[in-house]
Amino acid sequence: MTFRIGICQMTVTDSKDANLIKAEEMIRQAGSENCRIVVLPEMFNCPYENKSFPVFAEEFPGPTTEKLSSLAGELGVYIFGGSIPELHDGSIYNTSFIFDRRGHMIGKHRKIHLFDIDIEGGIRFKESDTLERGNQVTVVDTEYGKIGTAICYDMRFPELMRLMVLKGAEIIIVPAAFNTTTGPAHWEVTLRARALDNQVYYIAASPARNLNASYHAYGHSALVNPWGEIVSQADEKETIIYGEIDMKYIRKIRTELPLLQHRRTDLYELIEKQKRQNPIC
Amino acid sequence: MTFRIGICQMTVTDSKDANLIKAEEMIRQAGSENCRIVVLPEMFNCPYENKSFPVFAEEFPGPTTEKLSSLAGELGVYIFGGSIPELHDGSIYNTSFIFDRRGHMIGKHRKIHLFDIDIEGGIRFKESDTLERGNQVTVVDTEYGKIGTAICYDMRFPELMRLMVLKGAEIIIVPAAFNTTTGPAHWEVTLRARALDNQVYYIAASPARNLNASYHAYGHSALVNPWGEIVSQADEKETIIYGEIDMKYIRKIRTELPLLQHRRTDLYELIEKQKRQNPIC
Repeated sequence: MTFRIGICQMTVTDSKDANLIKAEEMIRQAGSENCRIVVLPEMFNCPYENKSFPVFAEEFPGPTTEKLSSLAGELGVYIFGGSIPELHDGSIYNTSFIFDRRGHMIGKHRKIHLFDIDIEGGIRFKESDTLERGNQVTVVDTEYGKIGTAICYDMRFPELMRLMVLKGAEIIIVPAAFNTTTGPAHWEVTLRARALDNQVYYIAASPARNLNASYHAYGHSALVNPWGEIVSQADEKETIIYGEIDMKYIRKIRTELPLLQHRRTDLYELIEKQKRQNPIC
Repeated sequence: MTFRIGICQMTVTDSKDANLIKAEEMIRQAGSENCRIVVLPEMFNCPYENKSFPVFAEEFPGPTTEKLSSLAGELGVYIFGGSIPELHDGSIYNTSFIFDRRGHMIGKHRKIHLFDIDIEGGIRFKESDTLERGNQVTVVDTEYGKIGTAICYDMRFPELMRLMVLKGAEIIIVPAAFNTTTGPAHWEVTLRARALDNQVYYIAASPARNLNASYHAYGHSALVNPWGEIVSQADEKETIIYGEIDMKYIRKIRTELPLLQHRRTDLYELIEKQKRQNPIC
């Protein structure tokens, strides 16, 4: 079974209304191009900066998630809703909401690993100044099989990626906003290695680079196949990229190069620990 | 503290004597170029093919390991002795022996993950037809800190790489022989991702490509730094490549981008299981 996926590398501005209009426009475009899954980038309704997160944050359900839900139902597509600042019990999370083809929310992921980094001569950012950390590994059931999802810096941690695969994920979707320091250095190699090591299709959706914003996203949204090859990739500008996902190809790769079977689980084990449950909405 | 490392990408032939002469020549050359650590490739004394492993196998101590020990002591260098087919209690292992600057064997690694692969239109190989699997994660203590070591297909498994780092490794050395199918597709991305994810210097030592051999090694031995950049890399031909290792740079990277501290060990844990001990010889 093959199907088409669309990755919306949208420009995010400091107007939430404009961002929602842009997201809708791109989702409709991807839907009209026969995509079964449409993916938005990290913080697609809000500038990626600490001062904006509390201002743009909304509870679930709210205007952004209602918009995504209704578009998913109307167009009959899965929407992996990038992420937004989510307000819950007085805390703000960097959260991805996922909707099925009837518009039902089938899962959400709150970013687990917060981006606190200080590179000499490069980027400095501390998400934990405003955001709380999520506590759950996220894999959702779809008619295309199990799909793991995480957000940006989460992809730096091979343990999390592997846990999603051990829970059955054959596709991993990661809304992400690397920057002009870490992007050129680490984006492509990380995407490719995650796809290859885990023998999954790996989708990473970045905002387009907006030079008027305080944070310059790397862009370069991409679809990587389970052999570690880039199937489609954007540059830094606003665009939708498309790619085919072939579930049979995943099984072919997993049979020919049986990495997941060859893991020496008699010598090591990766354990998921149960933490307090986040309420599912 | 910085020091120099030499990676000997030697041509392996079907003559063990010729292979030992070549290895000695390259080790002496690297020693004369002020290297403190010299690395040999996987199966440097034996053609990489199942029919040769039993024929070339030797016990420890044997002619190959005696040669490496005496060269390490004479030249005052650490030798990470690639690997050889090791005969032990009637079984054959793909084993790397490591010698300190006095010629003492300070550790050995028996390949944990055996290379059993069957790619349509590409490579087919089944190490487990002749070889037994090792059962230990290997990290040795040196005057340059802790160094993890593994062999070729072992590097495909992020769990093993991470376990070495959790045991304190700041450098990982992997003798390896990828081939002309998996090499172009996966060699560089895997080396770079392992270095980057684990914030280590990552050294991979391949044999040169010998078109007279049944197995065509990819070559492209490389030294990658903890930011995921390739510092030195060979092509497919016989050569020694050199690079500087700067222990302070590892700490700088681990401070600026604190991936190892940001692991969510409250949500996941990678556990090493104790298996029967391989006798240390």
